[in-house]
Amino acid sequence: MPCYSCLNSQNLNQLSTLKLNIVIVGAGNVAWHLARELQKKEQNILQVFNRSLEPAISLSSQLNCDFTTRIEDLNHTADLYILTVKDSVIEEVSASLNLKNKLVVHTSGAIEQDVIKYKHRGVLYPLQTFSKEKKLNFKDVPFCIEASKSEDYNTLMRLATLLSPMVYNINSHQRKVLHVAAVFACNFSNYMYMISDEILNKEGVPLDILQPLIKETASKISKYKPKDVQTGPAVRKDKSAIDAHLNYLKEGNNYDIYKLLTETIISKNNDEL
Amino acid sequence: MPCYSCLNSQNLNQLSTLKLNIVIVGAGNVAWHLARELQKKEQNILQVFNRSLEPAISLSSQLNCDFTTRIEDLNHTADLYILTVKDSVIEEVSASLNLKNKLVVHTSGAIEQDVIKYKHRGVLYPLQTFSKEKKLNFKDVPFCIEASKSEDYNTLMRLATLLSPMVYNINSHQRKVLHVAAVFACNFSNYMYMISDEILNKEGVPLDILQPLIKETASKISKYKPKDVQTGPAVRKDKSAIDAHLNYLKEGNNYDIYKLLTETIISKNNDEL
Repeated sequence: MPCYSCLNSQNLNQLSTLKLNIVIVGAGNVAWHLARELQKKEQNILQVFNRSLEPAISLSSQLNCDFTTRIEDLNHTADLYILTVKDSVIEEVSASLNLKNKLVVHTSGAIEQDVIKYKHRGVLYPLQTFSKEKKLNFKDVPFCIEASKSEDYNTLMRLATLLSPMVYNINSHQRKVLHVAAVFACNFSNYMYMISDEILNKEGVPLDILQPLIKETASKISKYKPKDVQTGPAVRKDKSAIDAHLNYLKEGNNYDIYKLLTETIISKNNDEL
Repeated sequence: MPCYSCLNSQNLNQLSTLKLNIVIVGAGNVAWHLARELQKKEQNILQVFNRSLEPAISLSSQLNCDFTTRIEDLNHTADLYILTVKDSVIEEVSASLNLKNKLVVHTSGAIEQDVIKYKHRGVLYPLQTFSKEKKLNFKDVPFCIEASKSEDYNTLMRLATLLSPMVYNINSHQRKVLHVAAVFACNFSNYMYMISDEILNKEGVPLDILQPLIKETASKISKYKPKDVQTGPAVRKDKSAIDAHLNYLKEGNNYDIYKLLTETIISKNNDEL
């Protein structure tokens, strides 16, 4: 078995020479960003396959490559087929490709790898929000990869590391859990900003005033565990501040949320002392 | 009455010549950062007054100014007395200074201006977390100011704008409400990160993977209202994703929090349609 550094230099060598022939299936936001970035990294986009004509023309002209809207004209000579279609049709579109011995991957955070029924299958999931207008720096996009076979995993790993320094080996179960975690860390934290905005708005104070503290809170956790930097009346068990805040909120959703989160933080803190 | 631009150039002129004699009361984190920054901006720190000796020596030697631990030796010739002592003793320490016709301000987010019993009183509240070790860029620190008299308000405004471009006119009631809003936007959003970390940790996935999304979520609200960028299963009313997530969480605090926040987002969304 070769030593770690041999493997490493072998890998580097492989990385520098990776050149895949790729078919992009779908022509939405993920397809736009991903295909253009792959092309920048010297990968060969053979064809865009998309059922509706206009997006297919638009993306393929951007990439200066072939396109088709008919499954019969799908190019069967590529090394890799990347499905960027929406979650609900991944299984059906994948089956309709009717490929032999080709690596087929999807790009979804929520769908299991095994809805793809080919022997060579996998997932290449970019964990960021994509919008066509906004330029995306792929260096800030973590990629979660998974494959049914180790040689396919290696291919995806080599491809993903061309795109981003953050590549994670994440299986289908972990990917599902990641979605739950992202709801808390992103959707619910945005909802906390929304409540804050609502409260300040009533008093004629702009949310801008809290922006520096919000940014500091979000960036602190790149260095510290959130548990170790929890601040506020709940973790201090500052009963008079908590009562004053509940008194101000009076009743309703924001009252209930304040109460539940405060009680949870206090009880969690008690357990650990 | 002078026109706006005359007032403006007059103000600029005043800003360029502001030179106050200041006594700093207290020698904790806020005193350290604030006093050094005031000195950098050409303000004259006459004295540090602090009841315990060691911090008084330490800060005054940093500032190269006088210090005292005895109220009898307080310098009565300053223009401005800045109280940086903890909330619970602001009223008592303020009264003990026994000043005549001097501007006395505190630096707390939670205490009313009127606990200071002097005619010339105010608040100069820097809205950031301070720690002695961490260097702070005052350009990122919003200042909330309040004063009982308009000439004192002007003095504080001129002083605060030397320190930061973000200066807000915030009265005692608004400052209290700001504290409630900050609990949601900062303390509770950090708690959301903590739950996320807990969930990922069980599955052997590092929170780092969500860091780019968390940062994006926090910085998006400098451009958009949180209400307009709310994403996730709740706002989409994606019942199957919500059920899958609740099923994964099973029961307990995180289940209750997911349920309450999701129901609130859904009902709020219904009201607005």
